[in-house]
Amino acid sequence: MIYLDHAATTPLHPEVAAVMYDVMQKCYGNPSTTYTIGREARELLENARKQVADLICAQPEEIIFTSGGTESDFLALWGVVCSHKEQGSKKGRGSHIITSSIEHHAVLNNSANLAKYLDCTVTYLPVDGDGLIDPADVKQAIRSDTTLISIMHANNEIGTIEPIEEIASIAREEGVPFHIDAVQTVGHIPVDVNKLGVDLLSLSGHKFYGPKGVGALYVRQGTPFTSLLQGGGQERGYRSGTENLPGIVGLGKAAVIAQRDMEKEQQRLEKLRDALIKGIEEQIPGARLNGHRTKRLPHNVNFAFPNIEGESLLLGLDLQGIAVSSGSACSTGSEEPSHVLRALGGLPDQYLNGAIRMTLGRSNTEEDITTVIEALATLVKKLNQLFSS
Amino acid sequence: MIYLDHAATTPLHPEVAAVMYDVMQKCYGNPSTTYTIGREARELLENARKQVADLICAQPEEIIFTSGGTESDFLALWGVVCSHKEQGSKKGRGSHIITSSIEHHAVLNNSANLAKYLDCTVTYLPVDGDGLIDPADVKQAIRSDTTLISIMHANNEIGTIEPIEEIASIAREEGVPFHIDAVQTVGHIPVDVNKLGVDLLSLSGHKFYGPKGVGALYVRQGTPFTSLLQGGGQERGYRSGTENLPGIVGLGKAAVIAQRDMEKEQQRLEKLRDALIKGIEEQIPGARLNGHRTKRLPHNVNFAFPNIEGESLLLGLDLQGIAVSSGSACSTGSEEPSHVLRALGGLPDQYLNGAIRMTLGRSNTEEDITTVIEALATLVKKLNQLFSS
Repeated sequence: MIYLDHAATTPLHPEVAAVMYDVMQKCYGNPSTTYTIGREARELLENARKQVADLICAQPEEIIFTSGGTESDFLALWGVVCSHKEQGSKKGRGSHIITSSIEHHAVLNNSANLAKYLDCTVTYLPVDGDGLIDPADVKQAIRSDTTLISIMHANNEIGTIEPIEEIASIAREEGVPFHIDAVQTVGHIPVDVNKLGVDLLSLSGHKFYGPKGVGALYVRQGTPFTSLLQGGGQERGYRSGTENLPGIVGLGKAAVIAQRDMEKEQQRLEKLRDALIKGIEEQIPGARLNGHRTKRLPHNVNFAFPNIEGESLLLGLDLQGIAVSSGSACSTGSEEPSHVLRALGGLPDQYLNGAIRMTLGRSNTEEDITTVIEALATLVKKLNQLFSS
Repeated sequence: MIYLDHAATTPLHPEVAAVMYDVMQKCYGNPSTTYTIGREARELLENARKQVADLICAQPEEIIFTSGGTESDFLALWGVVCSHKEQGSKKGRGSHIITSSIEHHAVLNNSANLAKYLDCTVTYLPVDGDGLIDPADVKQAIRSDTTLISIMHANNEIGTIEPIEEIASIAREEGVPFHIDAVQTVGHIPVDVNKLGVDLLSLSGHKFYGPKGVGALYVRQGTPFTSLLQGGGQERGYRSGTENLPGIVGLGKAAVIAQRDMEKEQQRLEKLRDALIKGIEEQIPGARLNGHRTKRLPHNVNFAFPNIEGESLLLGLDLQGIAVSSGSACSTGSEEPSHVLRALGGLPDQYLNGAIRMTLGRSNTEEDITTVIEALATLVKKLNQLFSS
């Protein structure tokens, strides 16, 4: 099998699985308890916090463990808006959020919920044909009641990397907290919260060979933030619920491995990515690359083919043992064309349903690329014949 | 070591650890994808849903997988209140919630947040000296704008089992949705959502030998409910985020094991519990049992000792390899006397700081009980001498 859907989820790294199984068998203490096995659990927890912090150049006390990227996005958006209300600031209920039209649904839907339940207004910034946000648009959108800017680091469908540093410098000038959904970048390309200049950042373990069901939210010290997941007061009161210790230890291990292998793996994947892009463009007439050609995730390839259904390509490739995605994993099953493709200026209608995303990872080789190009070219040809006959 | 803090968390059952490790190594597909390994993941997910549903006599489509009990409580409380607002009902923002003064902080703090952010009002019902809620109080508290009643099935500190069936029948008569936090009962005593008559129920895997970081929320079909954890639309739109497949499979397995062993294990633990209570009462003058003597979790023992710090007992026992809790695990570290003990009518002040909770489980034997009674009696004697000298 050739797995080309690493942006949907990655296999657990064997080293990660091994440390998790070890913790699962040996260390069942609740880190909130003060007797011996509770303290041992606490130590593992804090060690993992340091490992995750290191990966993004943060301080350990700025890391909140969560159940994944979606929860991190939820906590970030609601946490900043509710914090303003808590502090009796004029910002808060009824305040203003700036985001983009190509965000993951976790950000789009939480923004919509803040509009529905806390009377916020939301500005959805447009993108250009490559999926890039213009920092000047961000600057122009900021109002006196703007509570939060939330922009993704890289798009999960088309792989475009956004100009985060430029946006962060504008946000900082205007004194508006800036959140990025970095679920697609952390563990794949260097992410330094200080160099980027962001205030909140969401990451997810299973996107970089760590466990499913674990993620983290980075919150820079001093950022207005409260939490809606209240209870026993774990994670310094910012995320209640007994800590998922095996998962958190696994996330820490995945962070260490990602940091260790990143440079080499990034270069390797960029080569494979460019070979895949080149092969498709040379062998499949009408194929159109979605997303920016260079400001792009090292492992993302997204093509649209005119007058073809992405679902047919997905099925045809699956029958040959090749797993790809027809959009983001999260909206699979929905018949609607991707909101990301729709947002790209200038993509002709006949391309809207014919996109497939191929995202590379550790297991993929040069041979895989050759096989996939050939399989895809044959399949597109067949589907075109079927359609024109 | 003698572990007597099973209400804080339980060791992972070896059979659960084994199936989880198997899934971790072999099945990394994202259940939202449609190619082969995604479909395989989906199958495991739906099988686990059936297993969890079976444990509480629910339908699989009434089960929403979550990251644990705290998140389940959060989703339940906010979900019912927000759903009313969504449907344009007069209930919703500014509506009324009924709960009790001895709930877990996950329910207490979420109620407080609904008051803070959505202008809800909250009635906190009192309890009697044994921690029992009077169903007549529930009936009296219901108003025309009451959106939700949330009462725990059994208290996590003192083990008292509440009169859920009686409260449910009142809630149904008045047409008010009824949520129970059953984190302490599911997997330990028979829980049948239809016999109990509840509309929503929270459960947590790690409380019955399943994994940490996984739980479920039961929502009866037809209950007004929406979800604040929005994103990719997993769990039929009620809980977004890529599913924690190994954890969910582990939760399913834990449900099967709990159901299989429940009757025998419940009887065994009740015997051990009663022996521990009897021994302490006979050998430690002034010891006072907290919680109801018979309407009580099979594995819960909670005693208060006058003029003694629970923390000292915890430490003294830990040094002898006995792990107990000085309250609920979640509020350990806080210096405040337990809100549950405070709420019990008639507990004299000198008992408030001297409570310890001992919660039994699979590993405990009759010998453990003898050892613990002896150790505790000696320790209390020493501390009393220290204090009076």
